[in-house]
Amino acid sequence: MSGKKIRACVLGASGYTGAEMLRLLVGHSGIDVVSSTANSLAGKRLTDVYPHLSSYQAVELVTAEDVDWTDIDLAISCLPHGTSQDLVETLPDHVRVVDLSADYRLRDAALYETVYGRAHLSPERTRNAVYGLTELAREQVKTADLVACPGCYPTATLLCLLPISQTDLIDPASIIIDAKSGVSGAGRSLKEGNLFCEAAEGLHPYAIGAHRHAPEIEQEVSGRIGENVFVTFTPHLVPMTRGELVTIYVQMADGISAEQLHSVLSDAYESEAFVRVRPFGSLPPDTRHTRGTNRCEISVHADRKPGQAVIIGAIDNLIKGSAGQALQNINLMFGFPETEGLSGLQPLFP
Amino acid sequence: MSGKKIRACVLGASGYTGAEMLRLLVGHSGIDVVSSTANSLAGKRLTDVYPHLSSYQAVELVTAEDVDWTDIDLAISCLPHGTSQDLVETLPDHVRVVDLSADYRLRDAALYETVYGRAHLSPERTRNAVYGLTELAREQVKTADLVACPGCYPTATLLCLLPISQTDLIDPASIIIDAKSGVSGAGRSLKEGNLFCEAAEGLHPYAIGAHRHAPEIEQEVSGRIGENVFVTFTPHLVPMTRGELVTIYVQMADGISAEQLHSVLSDAYESEAFVRVRPFGSLPPDTRHTRGTNRCEISVHADRKPGQAVIIGAIDNLIKGSAGQALQNINLMFGFPETEGLSGLQPLFP
Amino acid sequence: MSGKKIRACVLGASGYTGAEMLRLLVGHSGIDVVSSTANSLAGKRLTDVYPHLSSYQAVELVTAEDVDWTDIDLAISCLPHGTSQDLVETLPDHVRVVDLSADYRLRDAALYETVYGRAHLSPERTRNAVYGLTELAREQVKTADLVACPGCYPTATLLCLLPISQTDLIDPASIIIDAKSGVSGAGRSLKEGNLFCEAAEGLHPYAIGAHRHAPEIEQEVSGRIGENVFVTFTPHLVPMTRGELVTIYVQMADGISAEQLHSVLSDAYESEAFVRVRPFGSLPPDTRHTRGTNRCEISVHADRKPGQAVIIGAIDNLIKGSAGQALQNINLMFGFPETEGLSGLQPLFP
Amino acid sequence: MSGKKIRACVLGASGYTGAEMLRLLVGHSGIDVVSSTANSLAGKRLTDVYPHLSSYQAVELVTAEDVDWTDIDLAISCLPHGTSQDLVETLPDHVRVVDLSADYRLRDAALYETVYGRAHLSPERTRNAVYGLTELAREQVKTADLVACPGCYPTATLLCLLPISQTDLIDPASIIIDAKSGVSGAGRSLKEGNLFCEAAEGLHPYAIGAHRHAPEIEQEVSGRIGENVFVTFTPHLVPMTRGELVTIYVQMADGISAEQLHSVLSDAYESEAFVRVRPFGSLPPDTRHTRGTNRCEISVHADRKPGQAVIIGAIDNLIKGSAGQALQNINLMFGFPETEGLSGLQPLFP
Repeated sequence: MSGKKIRACVLGASGYTGAEMLRLLVGHSGIDVVSSTANSLAGKRLTDVYPHLSSYQAVELVTAEDVDWTDIDLAISCLPHGTSQDLVETLPDHVRVVDLSADYRLRDAALYETVYGRAHLSPERTRNAVYGLTELAREQVKTADLVACPGCYPTATLLCLLPISQTDLIDPASIIIDAKSGVSGAGRSLKEGNLFCEAAEGLHPYAIGAHRHAPEIEQEVSGRIGENVFVTFTPHLVPMTRGELVTIYVQMADGISAEQLHSVLSDAYESEAFVRVRPFGSLPPDTRHTRGTNRCEISVHADRKPGQAVIIGAIDNLIKGSAGQALQNINLMFGFPETEGLSGLQPLFP
Repeated sequence: MSGKKIRACVLGASGYTGAEMLRLLVGHSGIDVVSSTANSLAGKRLTDVYPHLSSYQAVELVTAEDVDWTDIDLAISCLPHGTSQDLVETLPDHVRVVDLSADYRLRDAALYETVYGRAHLSPERTRNAVYGLTELAREQVKTADLVACPGCYPTATLLCLLPISQTDLIDPASIIIDAKSGVSGAGRSLKEGNLFCEAAEGLHPYAIGAHRHAPEIEQEVSGRIGENVFVTFTPHLVPMTRGELVTIYVQMADGISAEQLHSVLSDAYESEAFVRVRPFGSLPPDTRHTRGTNRCEISVHADRKPGQAVIIGAIDNLIKGSAGQALQNINLMFGFPETEGLSGLQPLFP
Repeated sequence: MSGKKIRACVLGASGYTGAEMLRLLVGHSGIDVVSSTANSLAGKRLTDVYPHLSSYQAVELVTAEDVDWTDIDLAISCLPHGTSQDLVETLPDHVRVVDLSADYRLRDAALYETVYGRAHLSPERTRNAVYGLTELAREQVKTADLVACPGCYPTATLLCLLPISQTDLIDPASIIIDAKSGVSGAGRSLKEGNLFCEAAEGLHPYAIGAHRHAPEIEQEVSGRIGENVFVTFTPHLVPMTRGELVTIYVQMADGISAEQLHSVLSDAYESEAFVRVRPFGSLPPDTRHTRGTNRCEISVHADRKPGQAVIIGAIDNLIKGSAGQALQNINLMFGFPETEGLSGLQPLFP
Repeated sequence: MSGKKIRACVLGASGYTGAEMLRLLVGHSGIDVVSSTANSLAGKRLTDVYPHLSSYQAVELVTAEDVDWTDIDLAISCLPHGTSQDLVETLPDHVRVVDLSADYRLRDAALYETVYGRAHLSPERTRNAVYGLTELAREQVKTADLVACPGCYPTATLLCLLPISQTDLIDPASIIIDAKSGVSGAGRSLKEGNLFCEAAEGLHPYAIGAHRHAPEIEQEVSGRIGENVFVTFTPHLVPMTRGELVTIYVQMADGISAEQLHSVLSDAYESEAFVRVRPFGSLPPDTRHTRGTNRCEISVHADRKPGQAVIIGAIDNLIKGSAGQALQNINLMFGFPETEGLSGLQPLFP
């Protein structure tokens, strides 16, 4: 990059992913946030909505309609699905887009309509968008005009699963993902289930057999394996703010051992800055060891049931599962070092 | 019962299960706790160890050696495994025993030695002990001299699994149990992992493929099915004090639907006071809905993957998973109404 | 009481105090809840709103307008202030009222208007309502037609302060109350501050110098002392669901010691079932020791600063601070033993 | 600084402050940690003790005795009090010391002995140590050989109090500090009170009138005011990991208003990077707004009681209250920019 800074607009700055995006960008040397939108809060100062974002004292939230896109290089959409495509489809061509919503993750617009309950505005665009699971799509991300950032659950899951998604390693019909997320995964929406008194000191599963992230996982696993795969996916809400852990069960192909799966995964991420496969035989990761960072920690275990392996993946859902991975993609798109703004983050423990 | 009260001794009153046992007995009209032991704290007042047990102002903890068993009808052992059998094997014959430890749960003493790392003092006694999963062993419990209360994970798991453990309903080789527990399941032991700062705001799996409750579950499921079964069992520590939830994955036998599994479970527990199977199509239970009670709440769900069902079971690990179920057994053994001391407990929500 | 049960209507059953009232009434032998209102949720089953209230499977919520008051003896209002008096003032004369809102707590209607921002519908009624701090107003409660139950903070505070509110014991100008409450004190309202992610893992003070409970405390303390008293009152929101603790600082009158204050308080509550003053020199109470019960635990301490005493009071804000104290009052009003439905509650620890 | 890096040894790396110190030093460009000690864990890898410190993969813990001090410039003592001076007093003269324990905070060795229960090894050294409340001792810190970092409570308290500690602003006899801390303030020690099940979902005061930080606060306030001052200080343990909030009550001198106190504080910290006084009339700070940072947020409020002001201070106890302030001091001592390694920390919210 020359000395000129990238000019970015954060769409949907009032949600947790928007706030986290802004928080991470404070530490980035090459990006200027020139506007932040939040239609329902337009006119308010950002620090009144998020007092912790004190580096943005001067920033006033505006409506998306009030943004002048002329000199803006990058739109970072932290809007809800649906709302996101409504806006993205109106942007001028020179604006590159990183979308954190679900709107461009499913390549099949018909499937999108089934899962999200509305027709897609641009079937062609969603078919061609780059699915930005950074470590596994690096080259496509670099030149993309539109990057669809994976959901938080798919990020943790696919980092564990994609390198071993081969029929000579696992039985594709056997994949079971038992997922656990902190409450921030549900966003800042005012629902009873998100209240402290309803989320603290308890645990509950939800959307059993019906969560929207399952088709997203299936799309990517099926693509790798070369056949249509169904996965079992059960999410649970855990009384913590940040953190996501997936416990993945697979039956191995004949003659394959858990140690071999481990070896494939280790090799795949050997040079990665943000994905670490623990040595075989280690303790599994704890979400606390990734909190506040862009890291994904993975472990592989042999089960007591012969032929069965257990794979654990842990991330901070708001960083690697959302704003952090988005920033990784932005760095690639605009020629910054991939770790810029992210490598300085140390896990906040205790 | 005549008017005469049962005289009981609580062994190991300084742990959480001991304390919970004592807490529940406050509300029981037919049992007198005549002594409470805690070898390392002998001489202390119980209320100095547990200020919330204010109904026991006058009680002083004693060593197990100092108990005079002459007039005692019932020993309730809340001791750790190993320590429990060491003591139980010394008791006079007239004392009936309810053991909350793992010492008499495995009928096979050789398996006990493998799993718990020491030889069993009385292979014959553990072979003949009644495994006190109350709802499914009611008649044997009534006349038992020694009841081995199931572990917390096995309780929640087996209540979900046993009624459907038939090869014409499920594939026994397919059982996967992803289990989640509050921190009180680890007891009051002073370990770093139990510290607030290490357990709050995070989640971690442990003992993958190697937890001691797996053989216990396998023993009971195998017994029902009539063949040796391996189960996959992965426990996770959740940042909450009480509550346990099992998410069970099973592949159904050909032609069987999740609704049929539900129907078998519903019928099995139709008349039960403490086990409730939610109507098919309901939301899954939340551990909060059982907190502070002896209840187990169960739901059955069809998965998006054809042939796969998901069963959820939720309990309070310290009550239905421990002291509450023990009291249910005691009630049966001594002819009290089964719900005595337990039916008045309402879930503490929020 | 003869065998005939009291017929009660719970107004505002959809909030946490309404739910807690209903939860406590499950264990009461003399009261039938014949209707439960929740205007915005009328037509819903109570168990859909609160799955933990499984003893009320058959109950459907109705609007307050749909209640037939002919055979109802008792209205328990768990409505918000304002809404409560709007309804209470329309009830037929034969219905006795226990109001858990703030509407009849302040005897001075002009002060009510200043504090709550609306004119009172019935200045006379609020002047004559019985302020139901049970232990200190027992006789008046017995015959009252309208009992105004104290707020949660005033309950904990006044139980500590009223017996020592004499100028020969303390300097009335010196009272400082630093109060801490769990999040359930804010009710089930959908506000950002009540979200798990905003309330967990942090602490914040609010309404400094301006909380509505301060005038209520001042009214009662002033009444005792016989002069107008201002109190400093600072509430803080603590990341826990239930529990409230007040730390009260007073300067003692010349020659008075903390031990003497303790002695006055001990004597005042010597025979009480629900208020316990710990022995002088004891550790201060923990909110956990009262959780799930109708208890108030109090301790008195000498400060390092000469002449200064520190008094601690701990309660469960939803029980002694709300529904439990209301039930105590109801028991007195209708001739039940004062502890009916409350004495069986043991603290839920851990 | 020239290009040469400072060589530092972290003493007591196995506690939370040691771990936090190491975590912060990852982001510091001018300091090399050349050894980390932990006598009881010597021989272990640091990452086995603290998996989140993955930047220290190669580091093995050693005993303090095994450190070769020849080329070491700086000892950072994160040892407990007592242990700290035992070691510090043995160090060669060329080693500058930053002590995070209480050992050199009290200038009066006799007072130290009263408060900490042992004679001080070096009354002269503690009399001359610099009390490193950075913002108020900047010049002395720069040239100090031994800096005693303030306790967490004193840090938050004194930043609020020192600038207004003048008899023409406040009545020195009136100071009351009601303090609240997250559990990490108690360190990693294995005590029942630090267990998750005993610290979660509840609140308790401790060490009333007797906490060791009170004399430390009094020393500094008395020094400013020029007369001996007693303060009332009551700490409370809050169910959160990080965060500390002090609620300070002062009676103002005649004619002084809360707004004037605010103005004095605002002026005092106008140019500070890490201390921010919120505009008068703002909401008070929340500990979450400082979590993970070296910031102290302060607000000043008029109370409803005439003449009384309330001052709130919030910090992250492990950073500004401990390792962060220590690093600020180190930066000053060795000529680094004061904000090095600290300015990049953004509050982790939610």
